[in-house]
Amino acid sequence: MKLACFGAGRIGGVHARNAAAHRDVILAALVDPIDTPQRAALAEQTGAKISAAEDVFADDSIDGIIIASSTNSHAGLLEQAAASGKAVFCEKPISLDFGLTAVVVDKVEASGIPCMMGFQRRYDASFLAARQRIDSGISGPIEQLSMWSRDPSPPPRSYLETSGGMFRDSTIHDADMLRFFLREEIASVYAVGASLISPDIGAAGDIDSLMVTVTTVSGRQGQITACRRGPMGYDQRLEALCANEVLTIGNQPQSMLSVACPTGGLQSPPENYFIERFTQAYRDEMAAFVAMIRDGIPPHAGIRDGYEAQRLVEAAIVSARTGQPIQYGKDWRP
Amino acid sequence: MKLACFGAGRIGGVHARNAAAHRDVILAALVDPIDTPQRAALAEQTGAKISAAEDVFADDSIDGIIIASSTNSHAGLLEQAAASGKAVFCEKPISLDFGLTAVVVDKVEASGIPCMMGFQRRYDASFLAARQRIDSGISGPIEQLSMWSRDPSPPPRSYLETSGGMFRDSTIHDADMLRFFLREEIASVYAVGASLISPDIGAAGDIDSLMVTVTTVSGRQGQITACRRGPMGYDQRLEALCANEVLTIGNQPQSMLSVACPTGGLQSPPENYFIERFTQAYRDEMAAFVAMIRDGIPPHAGIRDGYEAQRLVEAAIVSARTGQPIQYGKDWRP
Amino acid sequence: MKLACFGAGRIGGVHARNAAAHRDVILAALVDPIDTPQRAALAEQTGAKISAAEDVFADDSIDGIIIASSTNSHAGLLEQAAASGKAVFCEKPISLDFGLTAVVVDKVEASGIPCMMGFQRRYDASFLAARQRIDSGISGPIEQLSMWSRDPSPPPRSYLETSGGMFRDSTIHDADMLRFFLREEIASVYAVGASLISPDIGAAGDIDSLMVTVTTVSGRQGQITACRRGPMGYDQRLEALCANEVLTIGNQPQSMLSVACPTGGLQSPPENYFIERFTQAYRDEMAAFVAMIRDGIPPHAGIRDGYEAQRLVEAAIVSARTGQPIQYGKDWRP
Amino acid sequence: MKLACFGAGRIGGVHARNAAAHRDVILAALVDPIDTPQRAALAEQTGAKISAAEDVFADDSIDGIIIASSTNSHAGLLEQAAASGKAVFCEKPISLDFGLTAVVVDKVEASGIPCMMGFQRRYDASFLAARQRIDSGISGPIEQLSMWSRDPSPPPRSYLETSGGMFRDSTIHDADMLRFFLREEIASVYAVGASLISPDIGAAGDIDSLMVTVTTVSGRQGQITACRRGPMGYDQRLEALCANEVLTIGNQPQSMLSVACPTGGLQSPPENYFIERFTQAYRDEMAAFVAMIRDGIPPHAGIRDGYEAQRLVEAAIVSARTGQPIQYGKDWRP
Repeated sequence: MKLACFGAGRIGGVHARNAAAHRDVILAALVDPIDTPQRAALAEQTGAKISAAEDVFADDSIDGIIIASSTNSHAGLLEQAAASGKAVFCEKPISLDFGLTAVVVDKVEASGIPCMMGFQRRYDASFLAARQRIDSGISGPIEQLSMWSRDPSPPPRSYLETSGGMFRDSTIHDADMLRFFLREEIASVYAVGASLISPDIGAAGDIDSLMVTVTTVSGRQGQITACRRGPMGYDQRLEALCANEVLTIGNQPQSMLSVACPTGGLQSPPENYFIERFTQAYRDEMAAFVAMIRDGIPPHAGIRDGYEAQRLVEAAIVSARTGQPIQYGKDWRP
Repeated sequence: MKLACFGAGRIGGVHARNAAAHRDVILAALVDPIDTPQRAALAEQTGAKISAAEDVFADDSIDGIIIASSTNSHAGLLEQAAASGKAVFCEKPISLDFGLTAVVVDKVEASGIPCMMGFQRRYDASFLAARQRIDSGISGPIEQLSMWSRDPSPPPRSYLETSGGMFRDSTIHDADMLRFFLREEIASVYAVGASLISPDIGAAGDIDSLMVTVTTVSGRQGQITACRRGPMGYDQRLEALCANEVLTIGNQPQSMLSVACPTGGLQSPPENYFIERFTQAYRDEMAAFVAMIRDGIPPHAGIRDGYEAQRLVEAAIVSARTGQPIQYGKDWRP
Repeated sequence: MKLACFGAGRIGGVHARNAAAHRDVILAALVDPIDTPQRAALAEQTGAKISAAEDVFADDSIDGIIIASSTNSHAGLLEQAAASGKAVFCEKPISLDFGLTAVVVDKVEASGIPCMMGFQRRYDASFLAARQRIDSGISGPIEQLSMWSRDPSPPPRSYLETSGGMFRDSTIHDADMLRFFLREEIASVYAVGASLISPDIGAAGDIDSLMVTVTTVSGRQGQITACRRGPMGYDQRLEALCANEVLTIGNQPQSMLSVACPTGGLQSPPENYFIERFTQAYRDEMAAFVAMIRDGIPPHAGIRDGYEAQRLVEAAIVSARTGQPIQYGKDWRP
Repeated sequence: MKLACFGAGRIGGVHARNAAAHRDVILAALVDPIDTPQRAALAEQTGAKISAAEDVFADDSIDGIIIASSTNSHAGLLEQAAASGKAVFCEKPISLDFGLTAVVVDKVEASGIPCMMGFQRRYDASFLAARQRIDSGISGPIEQLSMWSRDPSPPPRSYLETSGGMFRDSTIHDADMLRFFLREEIASVYAVGASLISPDIGAAGDIDSLMVTVTTVSGRQGQITACRRGPMGYDQRLEALCANEVLTIGNQPQSMLSVACPTGGLQSPPENYFIERFTQAYRDEMAAFVAMIRDGIPPHAGIRDGYEAQRLVEAAIVSARTGQPIQYGKDWRP
């Protein structure tokens, strides 16, 4: 199977290397308009040819594309993939413009191309084990879901400016997890946000600390607590109160070494950041992309999940701005 | 020092025994209108004389009273204590009728009697250690506070009927903890609640599962997740994201024994319920009552804290009922 | 029931206070030849009368005595108790002279007085829960037992001089635990010891770091690792590999507060030392003494257990001195 | 760089795949005398040519060989590698015949070929982090070292018959860790062993449960507890009491999911077995082999370490057989 990767940055590098290392994949092309040493190195490591986008879409031997380029290119690439009938793996978000997201999702679905969203947490062993345990029936239904999502430190100002804001950039992953675990129509969304940790973020009109509360139509409750800074490092936890038991996903320590000294016992800190924390999840996600193309196995997250996660954060944005809860439902639009 | 205890039920028994065991205290009187074997046994264990309320208030040798009787008697006893100049230790809540609470609190303050509220979590070693660590400055200010409060199983229907509902009966403790840790004026209160676990509770018009989100005037955020049932047992945890570190208070295991078997490692479950979990906190709280009377040392929770915690849950009740966040502040009243 | 306590030092204070606080006990007498402020305070707190030993033994109203005085007085007091028919609670060891221990134990047993040894770990909730779980059959038989026993810091030189050495003074508790858990005749004992942490200890001819290995007649294995200094604080752990599962007893933290910071997660250190760690065990032990006298309930540790634990450490001492394992068995004597 | 791999079994598969996946390596040859589907699949996955041993040694373009074939072939292959000047990565043990081991090690050293032993634990992140922390000086010197080594379940009888016994087959890894951490001449070795868990093992004259105690010339103490069965799964832990702190290496859980239910909190079990537990260590070990060949970087474990670990287990074997401790030292030979 031949794949092409758009984007030679940090996340592009992860996906390109995982694709190239997959037994059944040839990474045929790497597309990135900017000629950097990083692009050259990635091409060499993966054996991919540095290519132009139009050549990729024109090449019938390429089965699928990986969209890991800058956010503002996602929508256009999705449309071209739909037009040329290529399978797509797309990093979130589809577009910072929700209207455009809606249009593109419709086009992709109409085209019938297999399309998978890059919500890698759905492929993480711990999150997946929780999902499967609930699916087995042993836990009983979730009644209250709590999630934490904290980066080790705030992103640089340059990143913030094109990020679309904390909700769209970061909380979209947590919104996806809410949907992945609650699996019921959401009735209300309430969010608060503030800039507490970084004058830069506040000056840019963005927030860095937020809480979101949702309810489902049957009254079940979900909660996200997120911050652009986690003093204990990268913090990605979840706790699901189910009828029969409570499931907890903790952070993954860097090693199993702990140290006990007079002031207490020191555990190893969590894996630094998403690249380290989700190393295996990214591999498994790429394998799922291959399996989707080759065997038609549905991925854990399709294009519609990308749309719905984004719709949910748009509601949170409106709530945080107006101070009012959103009466959500199937048909709410920002 | 001579004390009298009102109430020979579960919590009355705890306070009476702790008072009687205190080196400097004679528990002179036990007041409970109902003649039960439990009352007789408690009198015998503590050496207290079963007495009438009027005799207690008329007895000048009695320095202070412990109010651990049924909720609807609290306000009246507080007023009598104020009138007779006796120090008071009062279990929450002051009254289920917030208007009456306000009146009584004013009277108590006007009387100048020393008065302490029974928020025992403020005397627990773990919660206190967290408070002290933050006070030391090492942690930096709290930015996001999360709390869990879950009982092992729902109370019986008879209890529910006079409880005032889950917010007033149970969440008042968590509201007090929000205040104890945030120590800043609260700007907004939003709550959702549902009856998810018990048809009895729903039929009684009460809820059993709730989430509360508050913000302070500077934008800091607090959250309570509570349920009348905790499948892992009694669940009282707190997590404070501070600028420099994250403080976590876990549940207290019944023992330090854990068992590793092919399905994983099994930790000892948490202490059964509040009586077991807060055994030492109740002792320390009674010692603080003695120290307040004898040495004038201010308690961790005074009558005004009882009023403010109750005002906060009243706001949560209104929010949960209307679906709207409350614009809180110093002057909000239900 | 009337009891008398011999010894007003640290451990005497613990037992005297627990006895006095017991509902069914009057602590009638406190015996300590040295007039210290500590003795006076303890007498006042417990209501005990400072008495002479001969008056205690002559007083028929006194049902039992607590021997918590200096080690060299234990044997004589046991003999007097046997002669006067009083029940005894005796702190370890019976005598630093094993020959004398053997003689005294025979006399006590011949007298028929109820006698209990102060091995408080047998009354600790965690150690007891492990013992009971194994007794229930769920764990299967123990195959390999590991224990750690570390003090927070070495004792002062003055203490060392009359302690009988680390094996007799400290490891006797671990030897008792080996017997409590293995419950099978011990076939071999091998020990190594060194002075690694304190020149004082080495100069006194004692050791501060030791390991003991025992086998039972059926080949099961036990191990003790002990040190006079524990850099993580007071360290009392046990791990039992059983046929079906592994039981682990961890240290008891001072609080449930943990702190996560950039260098990792910091757990609360263990309880400082045996007084704090075994507070409840000492209470339960005293209650067992009362139950033994009043109801004839056999204690977890009798005088013969005191003898056998001491015999085991004598074997370890010989092994550590000679470098050879001891062929142990029922009849081995030092 | 071109490498050849001897052995297409379980561990041969791990090394062959890691070598083939290394950016700088071409796995040119796979040597295994038995034509199995496993051999064919491994050749296909790695791109290696199924070859004869003599062709590998005759091929000057092959830089190094990986010895992961059956134990009885190791010595001969090491000699051929020494003769042909090829670098070697060798799985333990060198030979079950210690005399032959000594001869071969001398030959390899005389030849000057770079040679590395497959003690993968030296490359594990947790064990390495402990080693580095001690090296940094922060921990202070190790005084007491405890290690556990337990397989999830006993090996099949067929494996046992050619394994050389539990000490040589399995405990050699722990012996290497004792040396890796203690880094001082060992003065005494004492071991006990029994067949407790498997009649098959006893019938084969082997043991399945053992404890080893060593002392160093300065009196420091080390201990191994090992069993062919671990009811909690694969158990590889270490605890080092150092002068300033205690280092603990725990087992690596399969996921970060834990479950709290009425009977307690259930942690995820450890990784199944060495292949899963040391996945990354095996990768890093192969990278170290490449770095040794290419850049002359000394590996964490050389051929002399293989010899010394084996010498230590030979002493343990003699001790367990005779019941006597071994006066060890530089010159002890079995």
